Amino acid sequence: MVTYFPSIAEASLQQLAETLAQEIPLSAQMEVSVDGFGQNGLSVSMPLEPNRNPHHTAFAGSLNALCTIAGWGMTHLLLDNLGVSGSTVIRRSSIKYHEPVQFERVSARCLHVTESDWGYFVEMLREKSQAKLDHVVQIAGSDPERPAVLFAGSYVVHCK
Amino acid sequence: MVTYFPSIAEASLQQLAETLAQEIPLSAQMEVSVDGFGQNGLSVSMPLEPNRNPHHTAFAGSLNALCTIAGWGMTHLLLDNLGVSGSTVIRRSSIKYHEPVQFERVSARCLHVTESDWGYFVEMLREKSQAKLDHVVQIAGSDPERPAVLFAGSYVVHCK
Repeated sequence: MVTYFPSIAEASLQQLAETLAQEIPLSAQMEVSVDGFGQNGLSVSMPLEPNRNPHHTAFAGSLNALCTIAGWGMTHLLLDNLGVSGSTVIRRSSIKYHEPVQFERVSARCLHVTESDWGYFVEMLREKSQAKLDHVVQIAGSDPERPAVLFAGSYVVHCK
Repeated sequence: MVTYFPSIAEASLQQLAETLAQEIPLSAQMEVSVDGFGQNGLSVSMPLEPNRNPHHTAFAGSLNALCTIAGWGMTHLLLDNLGVSGSTVIRRSSIKYHEPVQFERVSARCLHVTESDWGYFVEMLREKSQAKLDHVVQIAGSDPERPAVLFAGSYVVHCK
């Protein structure tokens, strides 16, 4: 599968970080940072301490919120790069917590979409001013073969 | 279906609220409160303001975290009532965001499990010291016929 991997300006990542910090108070409380956009997708992270649970591993609610933000951020960056102004909401998601996460810094990576899915999304957006984009987000664990957390989310964009 | 609806002491609800506030920092930041355990299940809630998104409705990450907490809290209360000490973790969940939530106070309700599911859970817990319990959590919206948010989560309990 060929992935859609456009070049994203550093300023767009900076703007995404500001939007998260200013417009989503919980993201600020979670201390989420936008770490980069590269060959492996969009990376966002958070420190463990404000996001811990009674077991002193990452709280599932924080892990899910970080993944939700990663998918939302990816959609936001791709729309921005397309030159389209739209509002993005998540419609549904599913998540598997395979193992506890206890790194001091917890990183989530939203994978790139395929060229084919991106093409269809853009076509729908132009035809109907509304389209759905599915994202997969992973949080690494101790096993390099299997992510500790695997998230799949569907995001709906309405053009303004 | 007959539901399992034990009588839960006020002190247990109080203890759950303290555990959430002290052991899950994000729950404290979300200002989650434990509102009651009754015929309709376990109710927890949070104010909109610290949990808003750029659209000034509830942030999906907060909604999911509130539902995750409701299911975890229900498991915690039922175990406590059974007189069993165990650790509870969420294994997987899925969530549908049918409509934006913009009440000043957002309330999630974890439904009661069935007598049959509860019986099987207790049997497994006694035989294997480990068992899974599935919970459904709803967040009400404008349509009384359909919740704004519908969450399903599987929780795994290990006896100590």
